[in-house]
Amino acid sequence: MQETFLAPKGFSFSGVTAGMKQSGKKDLGLVYLERPGVMGGVYTKNRYPAPSITYCRGLTPNALLHAVVVNSGIANAATGEEGAKRNMHFAQEVAQHLGVPQTSVLANSTGVIGHHLPLEKISAAMASLKAGLGKDPMAFAEAIMTTDLKAKLSQRTVDIGGQKYQVLGITKGSGMIMPNMATMLGYVFTDAPIPASEIQRITKEAADQSFNLISVDSDTSTSDSFMVISSNPGPGIELEKTERAIHEVAKDLARAIAADGEGAHHLLEVNVERAVSETMAHSVVKAVLNSPLVKTAIHGKDPNWGRILAAVGNGLQPFEGTDNLPVTIKLQGVPVFEGARPLEFDAKALSGKMAEFKVVIEIDLKSGQVGLTGWGCDLSREYIQINADYRT
Amino acid sequence: MQETFLAPKGFSFSGVTAGMKQSGKKDLGLVYLERPGVMGGVYTKNRYPAPSITYCRGLTPNALLHAVVVNSGIANAATGEEGAKRNMHFAQEVAQHLGVPQTSVLANSTGVIGHHLPLEKISAAMASLKAGLGKDPMAFAEAIMTTDLKAKLSQRTVDIGGQKYQVLGITKGSGMIMPNMATMLGYVFTDAPIPASEIQRITKEAADQSFNLISVDSDTSTSDSFMVISSNPGPGIELEKTERAIHEVAKDLARAIAADGEGAHHLLEVNVERAVSETMAHSVVKAVLNSPLVKTAIHGKDPNWGRILAAVGNGLQPFEGTDNLPVTIKLQGVPVFEGARPLEFDAKALSGKMAEFKVVIEIDLKSGQVGLTGWGCDLSREYIQINADYRT
Repeated sequence: MQETFLAPKGFSFSGVTAGMKQSGKKDLGLVYLERPGVMGGVYTKNRYPAPSITYCRGLTPNALLHAVVVNSGIANAATGEEGAKRNMHFAQEVAQHLGVPQTSVLANSTGVIGHHLPLEKISAAMASLKAGLGKDPMAFAEAIMTTDLKAKLSQRTVDIGGQKYQVLGITKGSGMIMPNMATMLGYVFTDAPIPASEIQRITKEAADQSFNLISVDSDTSTSDSFMVISSNPGPGIELEKTERAIHEVAKDLARAIAADGEGAHHLLEVNVERAVSETMAHSVVKAVLNSPLVKTAIHGKDPNWGRILAAVGNGLQPFEGTDNLPVTIKLQGVPVFEGARPLEFDAKALSGKMAEFKVVIEIDLKSGQVGLTGWGCDLSREYIQINADYRT
Repeated sequence: MQETFLAPKGFSFSGVTAGMKQSGKKDLGLVYLERPGVMGGVYTKNRYPAPSITYCRGLTPNALLHAVVVNSGIANAATGEEGAKRNMHFAQEVAQHLGVPQTSVLANSTGVIGHHLPLEKISAAMASLKAGLGKDPMAFAEAIMTTDLKAKLSQRTVDIGGQKYQVLGITKGSGMIMPNMATMLGYVFTDAPIPASEIQRITKEAADQSFNLISVDSDTSTSDSFMVISSNPGPGIELEKTERAIHEVAKDLARAIAADGEGAHHLLEVNVERAVSETMAHSVVKAVLNSPLVKTAIHGKDPNWGRILAAVGNGLQPFEGTDNLPVTIKLQGVPVFEGARPLEFDAKALSGKMAEFKVVIEIDLKSGQVGLTGWGCDLSREYIQINADYRT
């Protein structure tokens, strides 16, 4: 990922402190399109979606989008009818300040569950939020963070007929991360032309290949959202180039969330090869990423492949005819299990290789043609500390 | 659970040190029936079952059972054909020493994955194992332990027509615990009459109401086994009394595993009431027990009900029509969420109540008639320590 990020044409960004975070850090972010854009979105499958999810879902896909506003610190989730009302007021207030229809404004919230949005604080910050709109996306990226250690952005440039377009991604998320058809909060903004009729499909496919393949802690949040927004609702010329860039950016962001997982010392990459179906590959990737015993072994730089094999055996449970599949398992490139037998390897040397930040597990199922890669992280004492000592 | 345990008639027990555990503790256990008994068994659904699982499954149910032999320290899992051969030799050796057919001997293994059974050590210990057979089940209970802190036994007496019968349960398990149709290693021994035709059904039902409702760390092992053995293959007089005692003993053992979970400071009990189906109740119980964010909140004595609600929302994902169900959540008896709204409560006082060893979460789904209770534990720094610093 690069160090400086360019706003795609038609977008401006802002982020301010409204006072919802006790730390005093930025907690209110805005993305504005003067001329309406097209957006697609996918959202959490948690059965207790936050009011912001229900609201955004109702306006998705959208061919007349003017703004996305996000607050962090308070998720406004599990807050009943009052929560839905406040979410609507949040969007209305922004619409009024920008002079656009309320249905062109998406309002997202992330943070603690069970607290109401402080509308008066949001109102008070509205003027400075609007005044701050500019070409630098960093203030917005910072304003949506919660327990994240880093702002997470990614960018690609697409060349279509000699014309250069920007694809810019921004995300947040560090805990309660196992997105299900979406992610914590993820956005891709582009000025590349995308037809309104294609944007929802593109959004769904990008989420499935990126955010839906990561897990920090196997907990799916009540606020997961992923949106793709183009300021250029044009005909789909060389659309596959734009799609490829969107996929790359979404994968960068997903990896960045896993690497910034709460308490993580390692980024864990799991490659499953030659599965019979995408469902099977997905199930095995997730079983390995979610196994606390694999995660603690990675943390301890312990080449304990038995735990990986046990996790593979659990991921394969739903699939008939997979008993004792003669899989190959590699850890940091070193084969440790092949056929149905452990292999000899230098455990001390391999433990040394596991000191690297990125630890790669390769699993060859030798059954079909489908491969998938997912990302997670190790499980550390700091994860416990962050989440046990964090008081509501 | 009581302090001293009686062998049911017809059973004798032994446990010795064969040298498979580095600690020098007991690691070879034997249960012997002079006259053949009946047994039912259920086993792990992990797709990489240990050779002992494949072997025992092939002999289940069994109407001519003479012995169960168990080694701890080495699971003999993921050891290929050589592993299957050694498991067979293990059973053969015991059969020979006891003078019974090999098909009447079940051989179980538990411990580290990927290491071969040291048959010479087992052979060398065989004479003392046989010589040690007696009426005290404790030596056997100790011999099957791995990372368990305590031996785990439970007992009930059944009165059938004025005659007293014993139902004795013994289990082990502390990590890699989310049994799927079975448990790590669990045994119920009884002299109450059970017909051979009923024992498999009784075993399955007891497992479903006990071991299949616990989770320490959401990892299903390659060696889970649960067996019910009666030394009295008789007609099923007042069989429901015996079944009730078996269920009670199995639940005691399951709870004991959860309470002895690796690094656990708290036993977590999750009661789901008024679900539409057992599948739904099971899914919600497991989602709450497996949520690292709920587990760390329990560890931190934090009444963070938002995490519980998010976990309920994930457990309900497979079930249509469950969006925003107006559930009630109670924590240590205190209502914290009702309808779709947070309730006012004294967070400090409730945190104080969460200092107790047993923490109870009650979830009323208000949808149907089915209730289920499951058990788990909190997630602590010690869990990380045990599993990150444990070297293969």
